[in-house]
Amino acid sequence: MTTFEQLTTPAALVDVAQMQRNIDRMQSRMNELGVKFRPHVKTTKCLEVIRAQTAAGAQGITVSTLKEAEQFFAAGITDILYAVGIVPNKFAQALALRQQGCDLKLITDNVDMALALGRFGKEHGHQFELWIEIDCDGHRSGIPPEAKLLIEVGSAVLEGGSVLGGVMTHAGSSYDLDTHEAHVAMAEQERAGCVRAAERLRAQGWACPVVSVGSTPTALAASVLPGVTEVRAGVYVFFDLVMSNITVCQPQDIALSVLTTVIGHQAEKGWAIVDAGWMAMSRDRGTQRQKHDYGYGQVCSIDGELLDGYVLSGANQEHGILSRVGEPDPQITQRFPVGMQLRILPNHACATGAQFPRYEALAPDGTLRTWPRFYGWQ
Amino acid sequence: MTTFEQLTTPAALVDVAQMQRNIDRMQSRMNELGVKFRPHVKTTKCLEVIRAQTAAGAQGITVSTLKEAEQFFAAGITDILYAVGIVPNKFAQALALRQQGCDLKLITDNVDMALALGRFGKEHGHQFELWIEIDCDGHRSGIPPEAKLLIEVGSAVLEGGSVLGGVMTHAGSSYDLDTHEAHVAMAEQERAGCVRAAERLRAQGWACPVVSVGSTPTALAASVLPGVTEVRAGVYVFFDLVMSNITVCQPQDIALSVLTTVIGHQAEKGWAIVDAGWMAMSRDRGTQRQKHDYGYGQVCSIDGELLDGYVLSGANQEHGILSRVGEPDPQITQRFPVGMQLRILPNHACATGAQFPRYEALAPDGTLRTWPRFYGWQ
Repeated sequence: MTTFEQLTTPAALVDVAQMQRNIDRMQSRMNELGVKFRPHVKTTKCLEVIRAQTAAGAQGITVSTLKEAEQFFAAGITDILYAVGIVPNKFAQALALRQQGCDLKLITDNVDMALALGRFGKEHGHQFELWIEIDCDGHRSGIPPEAKLLIEVGSAVLEGGSVLGGVMTHAGSSYDLDTHEAHVAMAEQERAGCVRAAERLRAQGWACPVVSVGSTPTALAASVLPGVTEVRAGVYVFFDLVMSNITVCQPQDIALSVLTTVIGHQAEKGWAIVDAGWMAMSRDRGTQRQKHDYGYGQVCSIDGELLDGYVLSGANQEHGILSRVGEPDPQITQRFPVGMQLRILPNHACATGAQFPRYEALAPDGTLRTWPRFYGWQ
Repeated sequence: MTTFEQLTTPAALVDVAQMQRNIDRMQSRMNELGVKFRPHVKTTKCLEVIRAQTAAGAQGITVSTLKEAEQFFAAGITDILYAVGIVPNKFAQALALRQQGCDLKLITDNVDMALALGRFGKEHGHQFELWIEIDCDGHRSGIPPEAKLLIEVGSAVLEGGSVLGGVMTHAGSSYDLDTHEAHVAMAEQERAGCVRAAERLRAQGWACPVVSVGSTPTALAASVLPGVTEVRAGVYVFFDLVMSNITVCQPQDIALSVLTTVIGHQAEKGWAIVDAGWMAMSRDRGTQRQKHDYGYGQVCSIDGELLDGYVLSGANQEHGILSRVGEPDPQITQRFPVGMQLRILPNHACATGAQFPRYEALAPDGTLRTWPRFYGWQ
């Protein structure tokens, strides 16, 4: 049996029991709401995690790169939504996937790409399925539900020769709201905007079967979802300090941590130096402007116990500075001796996980398994 | 011949001619100063780049992980400094490398690890080479040159049974200084502190052959380096916006950029949305508190021409928001139409490169080659 002491640090630890609780929490909400759940696998890019999500009831996946689509299609998953606006340098890769039998859905929010994809499809004797991206909250991409452009793009999808499969939106601004009531309201805004867009397209006489919404905060807050056919969420599977800060979870719910080792001290400054720097934690400082700034992460004992007030206050590439918030700890060298191993909870599980080629999955019985994950685009 | 249009975006582009100019600039400084140059390969983790550095005159390498040591030793490089304080969970990996013939040097700044490594070596019939890390500027790890602890650690190295190979320091605080004069002064502080530490150890009758210093700003600023035997630097090979902001280079000297494609717009906000988000650029916001905040990166044309005033002002995982600093650009959709490809200069080349499994190396004749790079620790 591998033990913590035998792991080379830094390492990305997954608490499998906690991950399963997070999966069950989300899936039971989706079952109550009566919608299909399509997890966003950008958070983990890890087949073992997706298998647990699917076993709990998830149907299909959402991906952030065509590499994810390729890898998970090769593992037998066929129902895949690529949730980043399609552009010509990815047409051939998408075509190859569909020609191999992958039920890959693409998205766009503009006329040019709707027409260009249609042309490319015709040139290759293939009909793509396109969904239209809706902007429900001014956060990022997409077409506002009431915009004239929506009908123009719908027309271009059909004129181009693609199937208009549905509409999708993502209430990314829910991350900026930190109460349950605000998440409930944003979930309704997300739902209403996306359903309205579908209705406007259907009023043209066009089929628009799918209405897809989601973000972790809104998915966990929605009380009813009339008109919605599916929900997407990603980070809920591990959660993180950003989600905890906005009351979507408790710090104890976070299933991902970075195992690290104390490599030295600057005692008079109250610093322990650890071997988890930003290369391990990522440069994500998502809690910087939230109600509780955890620096580069919250320090826990090797058993996962929160050590309140101790954070990674600074990070270089392979060095983290562990210190107490406020007054320096004069006992830092005794409290965290050289060689001691600790766990650090991340600000953002998607960013931290991406720094590692694999997770170390810790089962409830204490055994460790290696779960590969990947990165990149090609 | 692969062309830009055929590359899937985002992609990490290396301008090979510019990289070579950066390598030559550093190596010619080192040759003038009469010191050995040991590049820090944490920036690129790429054998093709190291070969160019070595061909120009570099001797040996510095690594930030034992995985780098393993990979590059397998490629024939033997003289390797692992520049992060050693801890017990890495002893066996270091031993295996040395037993295979790798001339791997380890570092520490404390008595406990000096003794523990010695004990581990004796248990395995092996003598390690340890260097002592010196703190020349209060930046991070290391022992102040005048501290009593220095002699205690030196004694523990020898008592433990390891070879005391030398002293090393890194003036990381040089990144916080933005004039050439300040870099010259910091280079002298770095040199003087490290040389003083070596002299104190030698005054004990101990050999301390190596005096190793370096950071990109100090290496390029030092005018004389008496007592120093070798210099280390990493990011100089590509440079980045952080280095440009502190006057170490010009934006035109930056050899790494991220190739991206416009995927949509929010015209009324003056946004173009591109497919390089923080997963491609990294979350590094190193220019945030500098004199020029570039957001997540400086926008350039596909030919590398700087488009002044246009930056990645925001980033989600796979979406970047391209906008003009100040007033929104009402011509954003015409200036950056959907499908247009652009290059984005990074804040921090070490962090951005780490997001990619490979570089696309663009030769002066326009040909592209794939240069693999790696990440992770195991």
